[in-house]
Amino acid sequence: MSDKGRVTAAELAEHVGGKLIGENAVVINGLSDLQTAIEGEVTYVEEEKFFETALTSLASCLLVPEGFVANGLPKKVHKVFIEVARPKLAFARAAGLFYPPKKREPGIHPTAVVANSADIALTAFVGPHVVVGEYSSVGAGSRLEAGVIVGASVTIGDECVIHPNAVLYDGVTIGNRVILHAAVCLGADGFGYVRDDMGYHKFPQIGTVVIEDDVELGAGTCVDRAALGRTRIGRGSKLDNLVHVGHNCDIGERVVIAAQTGISGSVVIEEDAVIGGQVGFGDHTRVLKGAVIGSKAGILPGKIVRSGVWWGIPVQPLDEYKRQNAHVKRLPQMSEELKELRQRLQALEDRLR
Amino acid sequence: MSDKGRVTAAELAEHVGGKLIGENAVVINGLSDLQTAIEGEVTYVEEEKFFETALTSLASCLLVPEGFVANGLPKKVHKVFIEVARPKLAFARAAGLFYPPKKREPGIHPTAVVANSADIALTAFVGPHVVVGEYSSVGAGSRLEAGVIVGASVTIGDECVIHPNAVLYDGVTIGNRVILHAAVCLGADGFGYVRDDMGYHKFPQIGTVVIEDDVELGAGTCVDRAALGRTRIGRGSKLDNLVHVGHNCDIGERVVIAAQTGISGSVVIEEDAVIGGQVGFGDHTRVLKGAVIGSKAGILPGKIVRSGVWWGIPVQPLDEYKRQNAHVKRLPQMSEELKELRQRLQALEDRLR
Amino acid sequence: MSDKGRVTAAELAEHVGGKLIGENAVVINGLSDLQTAIEGEVTYVEEEKFFETALTSLASCLLVPEGFVANGLPKKVHKVFIEVARPKLAFARAAGLFYPPKKREPGIHPTAVVANSADIALTAFVGPHVVVGEYSSVGAGSRLEAGVIVGASVTIGDECVIHPNAVLYDGVTIGNRVILHAAVCLGADGFGYVRDDMGYHKFPQIGTVVIEDDVELGAGTCVDRAALGRTRIGRGSKLDNLVHVGHNCDIGERVVIAAQTGISGSVVIEEDAVIGGQVGFGDHTRVLKGAVIGSKAGILPGKIVRSGVWWGIPVQPLDEYKRQNAHVKRLPQMSEELKELRQRLQALEDRLR
Repeated sequence: MSDKGRVTAAELAEHVGGKLIGENAVVINGLSDLQTAIEGEVTYVEEEKFFETALTSLASCLLVPEGFVANGLPKKVHKVFIEVARPKLAFARAAGLFYPPKKREPGIHPTAVVANSADIALTAFVGPHVVVGEYSSVGAGSRLEAGVIVGASVTIGDECVIHPNAVLYDGVTIGNRVILHAAVCLGADGFGYVRDDMGYHKFPQIGTVVIEDDVELGAGTCVDRAALGRTRIGRGSKLDNLVHVGHNCDIGERVVIAAQTGISGSVVIEEDAVIGGQVGFGDHTRVLKGAVIGSKAGILPGKIVRSGVWWGIPVQPLDEYKRQNAHVKRLPQMSEELKELRQRLQALEDRLR
Repeated sequence: MSDKGRVTAAELAEHVGGKLIGENAVVINGLSDLQTAIEGEVTYVEEEKFFETALTSLASCLLVPEGFVANGLPKKVHKVFIEVARPKLAFARAAGLFYPPKKREPGIHPTAVVANSADIALTAFVGPHVVVGEYSSVGAGSRLEAGVIVGASVTIGDECVIHPNAVLYDGVTIGNRVILHAAVCLGADGFGYVRDDMGYHKFPQIGTVVIEDDVELGAGTCVDRAALGRTRIGRGSKLDNLVHVGHNCDIGERVVIAAQTGISGSVVIEEDAVIGGQVGFGDHTRVLKGAVIGSKAGILPGKIVRSGVWWGIPVQPLDEYKRQNAHVKRLPQMSEELKELRQRLQALEDRLR
Repeated sequence: MSDKGRVTAAELAEHVGGKLIGENAVVINGLSDLQTAIEGEVTYVEEEKFFETALTSLASCLLVPEGFVANGLPKKVHKVFIEVARPKLAFARAAGLFYPPKKREPGIHPTAVVANSADIALTAFVGPHVVVGEYSSVGAGSRLEAGVIVGASVTIGDECVIHPNAVLYDGVTIGNRVILHAAVCLGADGFGYVRDDMGYHKFPQIGTVVIEDDVELGAGTCVDRAALGRTRIGRGSKLDNLVHVGHNCDIGERVVIAAQTGISGSVVIEEDAVIGGQVGFGDHTRVLKGAVIGSKAGILPGKIVRSGVWWGIPVQPLDEYKRQNAHVKRLPQMSEELKELRQRLQALEDRLR
């Protein structure tokens, strides 16, 4: 979305740490995917099944796996090749050259309302109509885009990007390089009540939320404060849009959670777990390190999900799920078989009567 | 919500293109449903099973199907009837007479922050605390309600209504007569990462979002920008609240999607499809023209959903789903039958031993 | 989140209406849970299985059930005990002493945009960048936090807390002591259209939303206005984050609805129902008084859900669901049995040929 850069193939090869095969001076001015790339653009190919397609691409430059050229494939193709260990990753890195992250002039917009006791780094950007409460701090290079509301005693680290209309309630802490998309809400009260004859009374929701470094949260995602203690999203975790994280959850490092998944209170998800979309977690469940849970799965309260791939409602190992599903699919046939056996048995019984 | 109008039955008949039977001069001052309509109001009846109820309604005027009066039903009823081809549609049109769409005085509210390079039509309304970024444009008659945040290089067509606190990221384009409800978010980064030993790196999310004419998006609905290329919502499509549309999706014309449905990346939904609520789409699925998918269905990645009615997790034709479900319901009985056969067989075996 | 108070054990006992056993003068300065409480804090224990743990807690004060001390358990423990009928409830009440609800100086922030005809109570707080439309009213002691947008002709009762960036469309009414969390949206158009050859036309959405006293709505929750008439959330009901309530729904008193549940149009949920997370309701369903519906359940349109516990897609009584699920789990075994019977029958037939 920012102004495109222009780099030579040599500069690009250096930027991604790859080996250039072809003309150093070819100018690259953008990046695109294999199908739509045009002259002047760079694209990438990683899987062997796309090698042939890649060679017919109009792109001027291809990021390819190591050995790609030596293996003789691109004999007749007039392109620049850059060999790298992981082309897709190199492509992601290349993007920074052509679409550098948006920069804002540091400063506080005159329409922002910032408490006197708030501590805003000189290199931070505080956009139009932003509000920052008492005793809150915003670190170096962080951007608070228009309409962001930051409560009191909030800590925001360095180089964060907080997109428009996100809301951080009082006392929330976020680390460095955190990205919060539009309308993210951190620190709303957890959903806890005590019932008596009169109705529901709020159980104290006086804990907080801690978002560690390098976390990214999608638009509309909500992370509730802990009742007591804290709700945590671990370093490097990525959550998609409209995810709900209940009070007192502890999400480990490098966890990925797809859109619209809902996590009840006091759930623990250990590091490197991968969670699909629209998954539902009952309270006090625990997902062990590296487990993979398919979209739309449902996990009953208190369940422990071990490593491996899980699926279904209620969740079960994918193998079991598939086997069970196959049996369900065979039900009409089974019903026919049962009918047939009944007839044959009846025939035998009649004969022997 | 707006000031109610007052019209005569004759004016109403002309407005909806219907045939009036009864007094021209009867004054109508509002509309209501069959059960709650009072004197002075208009209501409608379309289905035959409600014809009798309609005649006992207190409404002063009834929109009815063609031939309704000739068929002799309303003999003793002192009402005005307006015969139209499609009463419900006529009723929808009639609403415009009594509740004309809210009008705002054109102009830019003094608290709005509009970039110098932005191009705001003279007849547009830009409300309190709205922000419009550099090089963005707002078309004739469009309304940006309070707190709407528009990034840079955004194009907004004519006669759009953007409700409070909606967010349009940089580069997004919306057509004419588009309605975005509160807190809609267009153009947040898609959910794409490349993993290495260190964790997840953002895959470039440098595409855009295009919303075509006459689209309506419900409150809190999020449409992510494409990684490369564009995410599109086709002309006349209607999405309910809290829907998630992932990067690079292509939603065709006149598609209806109910609340809380989640659509992963690169999904194609062709025109005139009807999608229920809480449906989940795996990435790269394709829904063919006119398909109907029931609420809560789950579609596996890469699946092609042909026209017809679909249901279940994973999705299958409704007929199959029903048959399968019936078999599952019969399982206890099948288990009993199996037990009985076993006993009878045992008895035979014992006799023949 | 507010400043902690300091109270004596005697003051605490009086506040919760309990019987103090131990030193009156012990100072308590905070509350915590059983596991993490430290000296100077109060915690609670209600269930017998945690009694032993409670006695080893470092807390200086324990809220315990009546008879706890007389039963001799805490013989050697130097703590203060406060016996109450319902320890968890007493603990919730105690929170008010240590974390009194946030107070704001009454007044209207200079950046707020309040219509001349709006009626704001002298004791209300209207925060930065709030917008209040024509003829709206805000009751005594209510707080509108930063960025809240209130349309025209909205009625807000007394002692409400409306968190940042919540949106109330024109004509919405909320009672007293209502809590709306960040980005709640009340009164967006319901999802109703009439289709003709050209596409979809909006069915009139000219009704309203009524939120009764003591309701709390979680972050991002959306309640649509009625097409005609009103959408209602009854007194004392509590909805979690990202819940969707469609047009014309009628939610009774003291209903609890967990996160991400979606409720289609014209659904009735009677009082004291308890609804899990990610549940989906088809339109025109009715949930009778006190029914409990498990998370992720799906209710077909028009269904009546009687009292009792319900589960599954489509929803069925929990007992039936469990039985059916057990049968599905037994399918592989059933399939084996069928095979075995077939072989034995074949053997008999062969013998008798």
